[in-house]
Amino acid sequence: MDNPLAALVQKIEELLEKGDEAAIRRLLAEEHPGDIAEILGFVGDEEEKCRLFRLTPETERPEILSHVDDATLTVLLARLSDHEISRAIDELPTDDAADIVGRLPEEDASRVLALLEEEDQENLQKLLEYPEESAGGIMESEFVAVPEHVTVEEAVAALRKREAEVEQVHNVYLVDDAGRLTGILPLWRVAIAMPGTRLDRLAERDVVGVPAQMDQEEVAAVVMRYDLPEVPVVDDAGRLIGRITVDDVLDVVEEEATEDISLMAGTGDEEIHETSPFRISMIRLPWLLIGLCGGIGSAFLMSRFEGELRRILALAFFVPVITAMGGNVGMQCSSIVVRALALGEMEAYRIARRLAREFSIAILNGFILGGILSLVAYLWHGAWVLGVIVGLSMFASILVAATTGTLFPMVFRRLGLDPALATGPFVTTSNDVINLLIYFVVAEFLMRRF
Amino acid sequence: MDNPLAALVQKIEELLEKGDEAAIRRLLAEEHPGDIAEILGFVGDEEEKCRLFRLTPETERPEILSHVDDATLTVLLARLSDHEISRAIDELPTDDAADIVGRLPEEDASRVLALLEEEDQENLQKLLEYPEESAGGIMESEFVAVPEHVTVEEAVAALRKREAEVEQVHNVYLVDDAGRLTGILPLWRVAIAMPGTRLDRLAERDVVGVPAQMDQEEVAAVVMRYDLPEVPVVDDAGRLIGRITVDDVLDVVEEEATEDISLMAGTGDEEIHETSPFRISMIRLPWLLIGLCGGIGSAFLMSRFEGELRRILALAFFVPVITAMGGNVGMQCSSIVVRALALGEMEAYRIARRLAREFSIAILNGFILGGILSLVAYLWHGAWVLGVIVGLSMFASILVAATTGTLFPMVFRRLGLDPALATGPFVTTSNDVINLLIYFVVAEFLMRRF
Repeated sequence: MDNPLAALVQKIEELLEKGDEAAIRRLLAEEHPGDIAEILGFVGDEEEKCRLFRLTPETERPEILSHVDDATLTVLLARLSDHEISRAIDELPTDDAADIVGRLPEEDASRVLALLEEEDQENLQKLLEYPEESAGGIMESEFVAVPEHVTVEEAVAALRKREAEVEQVHNVYLVDDAGRLTGILPLWRVAIAMPGTRLDRLAERDVVGVPAQMDQEEVAAVVMRYDLPEVPVVDDAGRLIGRITVDDVLDVVEEEATEDISLMAGTGDEEIHETSPFRISMIRLPWLLIGLCGGIGSAFLMSRFEGELRRILALAFFVPVITAMGGNVGMQCSSIVVRALALGEMEAYRIARRLAREFSIAILNGFILGGILSLVAYLWHGAWVLGVIVGLSMFASILVAATTGTLFPMVFRRLGLDPALATGPFVTTSNDVINLLIYFVVAEFLMRRF
Repeated sequence: MDNPLAALVQKIEELLEKGDEAAIRRLLAEEHPGDIAEILGFVGDEEEKCRLFRLTPETERPEILSHVDDATLTVLLARLSDHEISRAIDELPTDDAADIVGRLPEEDASRVLALLEEEDQENLQKLLEYPEESAGGIMESEFVAVPEHVTVEEAVAALRKREAEVEQVHNVYLVDDAGRLTGILPLWRVAIAMPGTRLDRLAERDVVGVPAQMDQEEVAAVVMRYDLPEVPVVDDAGRLIGRITVDDVLDVVEEEATEDISLMAGTGDEEIHETSPFRISMIRLPWLLIGLCGGIGSAFLMSRFEGELRRILALAFFVPVITAMGGNVGMQCSSIVVRALALGEMEAYRIARRLAREFSIAILNGFILGGILSLVAYLWHGAWVLGVIVGLSMFASILVAATTGTLFPMVFRRLGLDPALATGPFVTTSNDVINLLIYFVVAEFLMRRF
């Protein structure tokens, strides 16, 4: 077993079976909340997860809740009391708290919120109004902001006052009287500043906060491009309303990559933490049904060319290679475009240039692969017509697959859909049908003449 | 155009054409090195990239070099003088410097290193000895470490002394006389500490540094699990030798996701920044040739069942759906396993459990999809034998695809290969051949009897 937690999980499962709760309690007391969260995602059934959660040290429970995967969180929230949940929420930074409240059914959410102090309630409610995948949706409202004219000592005093509340301080923000962001000061500059220095003399004044509506993928691109430990979030008036730390950005990057890979594979990213075979089956089935419909369409299409197939049965032999190569080429093109879009590469925005390049690649590869296949078919069957048919079709399908593979993700993006959808079974399937059509039309045309 | 830099790129291209270097210089002086790096990745040909680089403010050049993509870096390094390169390296944190030196041909590297001070040379050489994708390979050797018994004032003095050298300080590390890591103190705790406090009274003492040999994916998992802004790296003796900041981890996560997606799609991650159609073609062609060989194999295989095909030509019509569905199911299973392995999910380590689950899903989906296809074939052709053949084969190929899709990535991992290889054309192709074989053997068997 590669994973160091695997042994621990096994031990806990044994202890659960024996019912030795005291031993589990001792074991869990030594583990980091991040580790416990991972263990919870893995151990036993829903009942046992909840039982285990209640055996963790009470002080660690908020952080554990903020670390468990979505499936486990849903399981736990369904079983914990309103008080247990609100106590955890109270302890967590607002971004993590909002994530948890956002998962609760509306009714439960209002009951849980009602147990908090009024100020906390308002704060959370404001955060919950932002779309889940926007800067506002991932920011926390705890940050350290001071007026521009304060000295280092005053800033340190402000930091001390907020010690309990704000975790992982990387920056001190300067704001004007209206709360607008006017400066950023990395914390280490505060730490080493000579006593008495005014902050506005040390701060970076040419600052930009990301707008609360910005998509989380763009936020990630900004953080990566400028290597920021955290970015401030501002409202329409430029007022500082929150901050996003790089560990949240890390989650975003992972999440988006998992989402893209899932869509490419024709499944949902919710699958990764799902354990019920029936539910996983229901996530995957719609994609497979699309494939099945396309396949039945291909069958009908081929039946229209029964005459050609009867004349040269060998045409059927090359059907798998025609569809497979179209699929491979389409996948190559679309996945590169999807990834470039996800990484915010500029390249992805110049459709004409990208298409032209993909077209040259396709012509080169199509020529080589079509040539080889043509030769193989000719040498094997001794019929040059067959050689020309398969070679020409292979060349054409590679061009078509490259074009659709490049264009579809971009079109999907323009339509506001996830470009990764354009790499999944939907596109592979339509490619299959198009390429078969090309193949048999070419065959019909050439066979009629020669 | 979605990307805000696109307009700037266009302007620079126009100015380059006009040859108005002064205007470009003015334009670039206002941009962040991270933005300039992205622009460089996009503008013009190799000559122009280099010309543009020399028009950037000299003080920004090191950081620009550390931000450009690999393809652009190679282009620039080939054209810059040893002095230009060594000056940039001298300014950069050691991890970025080592990345650049690591890209140079060996001879150039020693010439460039020779231009540095002896201490810097040694430092870099040490870093270059670690594998590129290990903790040692991504760490920087600049960090702030102090003896355990110092006071806050002494720590601040140490911070001040290293101000110019160390970027983005998140932690102050405590070390014993032998240089072994004994404590970690988040910087903000230092900033708010009361004067005179001894650091060892504030520091977290129960610390673990990651070993220098740890794979970068595991480092990323550690950083994410514990939400760390940076992690210390230790040698075999527990001595503190470097640190990895979370922005480097962000790069790792992106890199690994891009690598997985590229392999899934049957291409290389070096493609994303490559602009020459010929070179991209050469990256993709080997994968396509694997597909072509598989396709030719499929053709030979089908030709062995010419008799069956002549008796029931409709068998041919269902070839695309059999291969496509096997491919879809295989992709679903393998991509989930690959992603789970990449995220360090424990689930991925319990092969038996995973296989059992995938098998139940496959039985359920295979039953539904095989049933539908069987019915369609029967109603369409009125031959129940055909219905049974396609239904049964569909069911069997889904089971086979689920098994290979789940097992292959795990086996690849055990063999020390990248599990994502097991989702690419290699596996799709072998699935095609296996599924066709199942299909025609089932057909032969049933047709001989009924």
